Amino acid sequence: MQGLRGAFVFPGALRRLLDMGRGARVSIISTMTSPLRSTLDFLLHDWLQAESLTARERFADHSRETFDAVLDTCERIAREKYAPFNRTVDEQEPRFDGERVILPQCTHDARLAYAESGMLSAAQDYELGGMQLPYVVESAANAFFGVASISIGANLLTTGNANAILAHGTPMQQQVFAANEFNGRWTGTMCLSEPQAGSSLSDVATRAEADGADFADDPLGPRYRLTGNKMWISGGDHELAENIVHLVLAKIPGPDGKLVPGTRGISLFIVPKHLVDTDGRLTGERNDVALAGLNHKLGWRGTTNTLLNFGEGKYPVRGSAGAIGYLVGQPGEGLKCMFHMMNEARIAIGMAATMLGLAGYYASLDYARTRLQGRPMGAGGKDPTQPPVPLIEHADIKRMLLAQKSWCEGALALNLYCARLVDEGRTGEPQAAAEARLLLEVLTPIAKSWPSENCLEANSLAIQIHGGYGYTRDFPVEQYWRDNRLNMIHEGTHGIQAMDLLGRKVVMQDGAGLKLLARTIGAAIERARAHPELADWAGQLAQALQEVGEATQAAWATGDPQEALANAVPYMQAFGHVVLAWMWLDIACSVLQRDASLSSPASAGRMGAARYFFHYELPRIGAWLAVVRRRDMSCAAMADEMF
Amino acid sequence: MQGLRGAFVFPGALRRLLDMGRGARVSIISTMTSPLRSTLDFLLHDWLQAESLTARERFADHSRETFDAVLDTCERIAREKYAPFNRTVDEQEPRFDGERVILPQCTHDARLAYAESGMLSAAQDYELGGMQLPYVVESAANAFFGVASISIGANLLTTGNANAILAHGTPMQQQVFAANEFNGRWTGTMCLSEPQAGSSLSDVATRAEADGADFADDPLGPRYRLTGNKMWISGGDHELAENIVHLVLAKIPGPDGKLVPGTRGISLFIVPKHLVDTDGRLTGERNDVALAGLNHKLGWRGTTNTLLNFGEGKYPVRGSAGAIGYLVGQPGEGLKCMFHMMNEARIAIGMAATMLGLAGYYASLDYARTRLQGRPMGAGGKDPTQPPVPLIEHADIKRMLLAQKSWCEGALALNLYCARLVDEGRTGEPQAAAEARLLLEVLTPIAKSWPSENCLEANSLAIQIHGGYGYTRDFPVEQYWRDNRLNMIHEGTHGIQAMDLLGRKVVMQDGAGLKLLARTIGAAIERARAHPELADWAGQLAQALQEVGEATQAAWATGDPQEALANAVPYMQAFGHVVLAWMWLDIACSVLQRDASLSSPASAGRMGAARYFFHYELPRIGAWLAVVRRRDMSCAAMADEMF
Repeated sequence: MQGLRGAFVFPGALRRLLDMGRGARVSIISTMTSPLRSTLDFLLHDWLQAESLTARERFADHSRETFDAVLDTCERIAREKYAPFNRTVDEQEPRFDGERVILPQCTHDARLAYAESGMLSAAQDYELGGMQLPYVVESAANAFFGVASISIGANLLTTGNANAILAHGTPMQQQVFAANEFNGRWTGTMCLSEPQAGSSLSDVATRAEADGADFADDPLGPRYRLTGNKMWISGGDHELAENIVHLVLAKIPGPDGKLVPGTRGISLFIVPKHLVDTDGRLTGERNDVALAGLNHKLGWRGTTNTLLNFGEGKYPVRGSAGAIGYLVGQPGEGLKCMFHMMNEARIAIGMAATMLGLAGYYASLDYARTRLQGRPMGAGGKDPTQPPVPLIEHADIKRMLLAQKSWCEGALALNLYCARLVDEGRTGEPQAAAEARLLLEVLTPIAKSWPSENCLEANSLAIQIHGGYGYTRDFPVEQYWRDNRLNMIHEGTHGIQAMDLLGRKVVMQDGAGLKLLARTIGAAIERARAHPELADWAGQLAQALQEVGEATQAAWATGDPQEALANAVPYMQAFGHVVLAWMWLDIACSVLQRDASLSSPASAGRMGAARYFFHYELPRIGAWLAVVRRRDMSCAAMADEMF
Repeated sequence: MQGLRGAFVFPGALRRLLDMGRGARVSIISTMTSPLRSTLDFLLHDWLQAESLTARERFADHSRETFDAVLDTCERIAREKYAPFNRTVDEQEPRFDGERVILPQCTHDARLAYAESGMLSAAQDYELGGMQLPYVVESAANAFFGVASISIGANLLTTGNANAILAHGTPMQQQVFAANEFNGRWTGTMCLSEPQAGSSLSDVATRAEADGADFADDPLGPRYRLTGNKMWISGGDHELAENIVHLVLAKIPGPDGKLVPGTRGISLFIVPKHLVDTDGRLTGERNDVALAGLNHKLGWRGTTNTLLNFGEGKYPVRGSAGAIGYLVGQPGEGLKCMFHMMNEARIAIGMAATMLGLAGYYASLDYARTRLQGRPMGAGGKDPTQPPVPLIEHADIKRMLLAQKSWCEGALALNLYCARLVDEGRTGEPQAAAEARLLLEVLTPIAKSWPSENCLEANSLAIQIHGGYGYTRDFPVEQYWRDNRLNMIHEGTHGIQAMDLLGRKVVMQDGAGLKLLARTIGAAIERARAHPELADWAGQLAQALQEVGEATQAAWATGDPQEALANAVPYMQAFGHVVLAWMWLDIACSVLQRDASLSSPASAGRMGAARYFFHYELPRIGAWLAVVRRRDMSCAAMADEMF
């Protein structure tokens, strides 16, 4: 990180953001605290004790006040620049006029406001213009943008890209590329998938060949020429910023000119859309990265998603074929460099799914409170002479609201818990830090997959509560549902997360991760047992945890991955439910510690959501684990022609 | 039905259709039988023995050949006039140019082809121009249109409307209105919901007042003036046909000028868009039915869905206020007349959901067979030097395919079983007919709700199998998923079906319906026990059936509907899974009877789908029934402010 040191004045970003926050606080002081803010405050402070992080050197300048200021500012920007335009970006999909990708003005405005807030570099060192914000607070602050409009911005992609360069790039690459992403001048992408290979990264066919004899002497890094196609590239082309920094996975051919099969041959390259000099100025040369097509999606339409051609010759550059790219890190270590950022990217997807879920919950709660329809079932049936009541008075509407609350607030808790583990892994004592990193490894597939599946289901219930109105585009819930459907697909599909969990995470290091998780959950169970009213749930969770452990053993009893992994997804579903039950038990503890008599409706509500999870959700694991335990091959044994 | 007798020549429609079918058969003789056709043939003939119906007088002219001809013809029309335009009707949504509702040309063509096939009156008497087709065959034939394009046609609405007039209208109403719907000249709607009342029919506020002193003397029926608004009216306005026959629920005020609260005050009226004379000719007078707005939907966009104003004065008619409507049946019996058609309408919705599910299954199966990606997990992991394999070789892809097959083919079986009950109720011996009608009453909420929920989930898996491509509009699966989301909402929401099931159907006549269902399932279990390989599943189903019975008792143990119905939806979900397990057990019996060694892949596939249901699905009922059994009030007890 030497490369950026000294480029920025010490706590400027932090000061600026604090000032913005104070302004925001004054302007909203007369309004109610939003339900999301209340939930975040509870989870961050009452439950996760985020303020205790300020005792650590890295966060010493921070306080509850600075954390609040960040949240205030982000909530305000999200309310003003994101929420009003969520439908606009759905209706005015990105289009290509033959030369440029056109996005609505609101997308430009939202990006600018986000960049100006300093959130792009919020977690970075002061020297990088950052504010050394804990990741858990950064995640919470970003939640406001997710709930307001998930697709209008792709800023986390830019941050992730810059973080990868920071971790693996040369000082010059950091200074030229990462810094200009953090300060908002440029945006970033991740170019992994290819049209023919999808999730199968070992089949990457993009070639990178050394660019001339002096290729190794370029101050921006070893210079290569890339040729190939990359599919599903979000933010792949647009005019939102001066330049786009593509991080591209490609293979350097061996001496025989052939690409190495598998993922070992993959290297990572910086491929800017416009070429730049070592001062970060555009040289005026367009690199040979051409838009081959925009993907027209079911949802998430605010963000362009593209097929890009690298080095096809549309923009020939410096007299040779291929797009110019600069190697990042060592040849053959491209995946390692990319996966560095994967945990955070996957938590971010889980968070996106969660925020879409919560957006639907809030919308349907509002609708259920204001829409008058029908009469509740009385002891003697319904009395048509009585006036209609708000929807929320019907038992089945309450069931659908409580399910949403339980799933989405539980998912939010899990994602913040994981974000807190990121902080611990970076700033904790060595032993605690190592454990946090290990626990995060195990939890990441759940943090990504569980909200993707269950908060999507929450969106379906939000539609259902609206009845016919929910099926129209006059209400926001159908869009949340469409947007959310992406999350089981990108950043590793559901199936891939499940293979990662059962095939790698719970067995690695002789099961050390799973054992650590079991100890951690066990400690939470012990804490809960101090509260007599939680004893039943604690017992249920202990039992469920044991069943997951037994199922893991049984899955691998024959040591044959085909048998073990045949039911990896049901395993992940059960595993996720156990993790969420743990979250709710632990939250219930916090609630009782603060408000033992449940005197506030918020406390009673959280306890109700926990109860829902233990009564309606946790018992579902039985069906999932049964097939794992007996290594059920009913599906795997089906021959093609039997379908 | 006196009114229509003699208006048509005896078996003309049947002859014509047979001829069309022969033509179709010749033209497709060289192509493979479609997977849907194979499944329908198996279910109709091997399983349900539909041909045995030809022994009954009403169906005496029919044979396997006529049944096949109907299916051949419908498959051909669906292939030529429906399937190629499914995306067109999604993209070219209905729009209003200020005067007319514009639909794409393909929608006109599809309607015409359907009307010309004679399918609008397929089940009617010969004297009505019909072909006296069994309802089960009509349902199977209509399946082809559902799988090709669910929303391009709303013909079942026209048929349902005409059937209601046939059952409750005067001979003149039948002759003028029903006949011109059956012959395709006019289309029909059902106008139940109102903007302020949604599902709550007791709050219908549309008024119907006698139209002058001679109101009772109109040859078209007692003449009223209607004023009010109707919401969610499918097919409510368009130029597809010469006229639209609205069937409208409205209330006739009492002597005090007030509307009677509740559903008892509701009457049914025929309100044509254009007024007609007793010969069915348009008089040239526009009735005062005005389009107030088109609903812009998430899916199902081929069918207009409208808000209609009746009698608002936009088209004043004959010097008085109000839209002219003719009473059908007795005053105050409107709901009874409308519900006459409800069972069939709900089976049709279940069938629609099923066909969308199957459409997604076929699309994703095709994709999984042709898309090469990744390598299966070998005993030693994956070998990147091997070429990629078709997706279908991955275990999790097989799981998602088999789940779709099991859900959707199971749902198709249930819907056809119910259609067969309709035939039995109409043409069976008195005792058998009465039992069939009772069984149908109990099964209808399941036939509607189960496919709506589970075949929607199937569509989600179809997207998942496609990966990122499934999330784009370049593939059909995202549209199936959007289209299918409607089915849990219209024709009685999921919640309403559940209240109907647990609040009415299983308790009516002292539980006679539930007992009959238990006896019927019990007989199927006994048959299955003759096959040793089915003994386990038979035992599981017997156990599950007992659990449902106990849960029903427990739900009503206190006699308090608030407690009993608090978990009506989980009850319905469990009940539905037991019904589907019964379907699969019974199908498995048929498979083994014909092909005990499972020598054909189709037999093995059906047995695999049955196995999937017993291994992966039936065990899910435990979690659902647990909350029903203990009358869990976790949701119902939540106060508004706790959310």
